[in-house]
Formats: sequence, C-alpha cells, structure tokens
Amino acid sequence: MATESQSKLLRIQSCIRAFTDFPTKGIMFRDICPLLKDPAALTAAIDLLEDYVKKNHEEVDLLIGLDARGFLFGPLLAQRLGVGFVLVRKKGKLPGPTVSVEYELEYGKAEAEMQEDAVEAGQKVLLIDDLLATGGTLYAACELMKRQQAQVLACLVVIELKELNGKDKLKPYPVFSLVKY
Amino acid sequence: MATESQSKLLRIQSCIRAFTDFPTKGIMFRDICPLLKDPAALTAAIDLLEDYVKKNHEEVDLLIGLDARGFLFGPLLAQRLGVGFVLVRKKGKLPGPTVSVEYELEYGKAEAEMQEDAVEAGQKVLLIDDLLATGGTLYAACELMKRQQAQVLACLVVIELKELNGKDKLKPYPVFSLVKY
Repeated sequence: MATESQSKLLRIQSCIRAFTDFPTKGIMFRDICPLLKDPAALTAAIDLLEDYVKKNHEEVDLLIGLDARGFLFGPLLAQRLGVGFVLVRKKGKLPGPTVSVEYELEYGKAEAEMQEDAVEAGQKVLLIDDLLATGGTLYAACELMKRQQAQVLACLVVIELKELNGKDKLKPYPVFSLVKY
Repeated sequence: MATESQSKLLRIQSCIRAFTDFPTKGIMFRDICPLLKDPAALTAAIDLLEDYVKKNHEEVDLLIGLDARGFLFGPLLAQRLGVGFVLVRKKGKLPGPTVSVEYELEYGKAEAEMQEDAVEAGQKVLLIDDLLATGGTLYAACELMKRQQAQVLACLVVIELKELNGKDKLKPYPVFSLVKY
C-alpha cells in the first residue's frame, strides 16, 4: 500500500510532462505547468518540501529562490516555514546595492544577482529552484551566499535530471529533489 | 482605531521601498523585496487579495500570473482560492503549442505567451502581477485570454502607479490594487 508521501509523489509526477526538442534540438524539456495548474498536486509538492526541511534543516533563517521558476515554489514554501523569501535574479533586475556572480552557460555567460542587504553574515539559508540540470545557476547562487558569509544548508528542487550530474557540481551542499529523471 | 485590514495594509506599505533612477534615470522604482522577506507582511498581502476575490469574484476558475514577479504572489493566492495557476511568460520560455500576443514597450516590442491548453473557452480568470504601471503587459495578457475565449474577471496587483493610467488602458476590466502611489 502506498504511504501518504508516495501517493503525493505520484500525484506530482503525473503533473510533469515532457516535450522533446525544447528549447533546442536534442533537449527533453520537463514541463511543470500542469503541476501549477493542479491545486492538490501543488499542495503535495510543498508538503513534501516542507517535510524534508522540518526533518533536516529546521534551523533555516531564509529561503532563497531563483528567477523565474524558483519564484513559483519559493514563497509558498517560505510561508509554510515562516521564514522570509529572497530573490536571486538575472543581472540588472534588482534595484539598490547588489552583489553578483558570473557563471557559464552553454553558450556565453550570465550573472546571478542579489540585493546586498538581502542576506546577513551567519544566516542559514536554503536555495530553491524548479529544476536541477547542470547546476550552474544554483552553484552561482551558492557562491553569492558564500560571498555574503551566509551558510547554505541545502538546495531544493522539484525536478532533478540525474544524468547531468548537477548534484556533483553543488557538493558539498546537499540536494533534495522530489522527482528524478 | 485601525481595522484589521488597515493594519495589514500599513504592514505591507512599510515593506515597499523606493529607489530613484532605476532601472533608468527619472524612474522611481518600487521595490517589493522587503515584502517577500517579511513573512507576516506577505501573509497580509495574500489575505487582502483573497478577501477581495472572495467578496467579488468567487466564481473564479483560474489565476493567471505574469512573468516574473507575478509568479511571487500568484501561486500563494491560487492555493488560498483552491484554483490552478497559469503562467504567462515572455516569448520562447514555454514548451508545446502556445498562443502569443505582441505588445509595445517603451522601446520596441515584446510578446506575451501562454500554452494553448492552459485556459479553456468560457473559463473565468483573474490576472495577477506585482505592479501596474502603463498596463501594457497586463493588457497583452487580457488579449491572450480573449483569444482563448476566457472571461477576465479582474486584474490584481500589489502596487498601482496611478499617474501612469494603467487602469484606463485595462478598461473594461476592473483593477484591484493593494497600495497606490
């Protein structure tokens, strides 16, 4: 018999669909739109993320979410945990004094940026995004946290694409994912 | 004596800060980052949005959120209302068959895009974004809904910049905003 967690996971998995050759040829895109559109499945996803955090990282001070699909899950989880939510965005989107870290894309470079006063030294943070692929953006966000002397407890994602080894790139930070492909 | 709604509003207002000359000279940027970072203020914002919807548009079927800051508030409100959340994104971000509408920016043009199966004919929808300025993006999103024969009940925003007359551009759709400048 399926446990409650297992049936939540099945509901979540049933709401992730695959599209071939998007955004470019050879890429299998995992689409979370049906998950956002199904209120019970979205509740289930946040339940399981909350369970993991409460069991493993109850000391968390802040949740950090990545632009743009991390914004879909981050505030929901932050509200459950009773902590603040902080935005890491693409360069040029945030006002005021900021800190940024450059990272490599498949073609070219990008910069992850955060407001300087968003995170304080010594704070314990969790990072959240929708999907872990090669881990480049999450790694840059971890670097941002290090620069602000915050402590990264773990990275949370809804989907992990295992063959891209993002987990290795993010070592020593633990990665928690709901659904693995 | 302040009512409960008024004290919630004060808490929200205290979490919006202004930066001059961002993103370009002459623009006063209203920054919602402190609102996301304050769990009680964020709860208050969603409370007031929920109150408005329950009083005025209880028949809502779906909540439609705009990339990227609409994603911060949309899923929270959708969960409260027990409805699905649908993404309207900048062109090229969504897989599968999509519909899109072009709209004018200060310099040049952009396209708002949605998955074709996201909204069905006859569905009653609410739109949400963080801020109403000239209303260009929300107007494009309303056009997308019209094209799919969905019925827009209202547009919801956290902040309204009154002097830019976005409300006029969005007529006949009602606009509900929490904080006005």
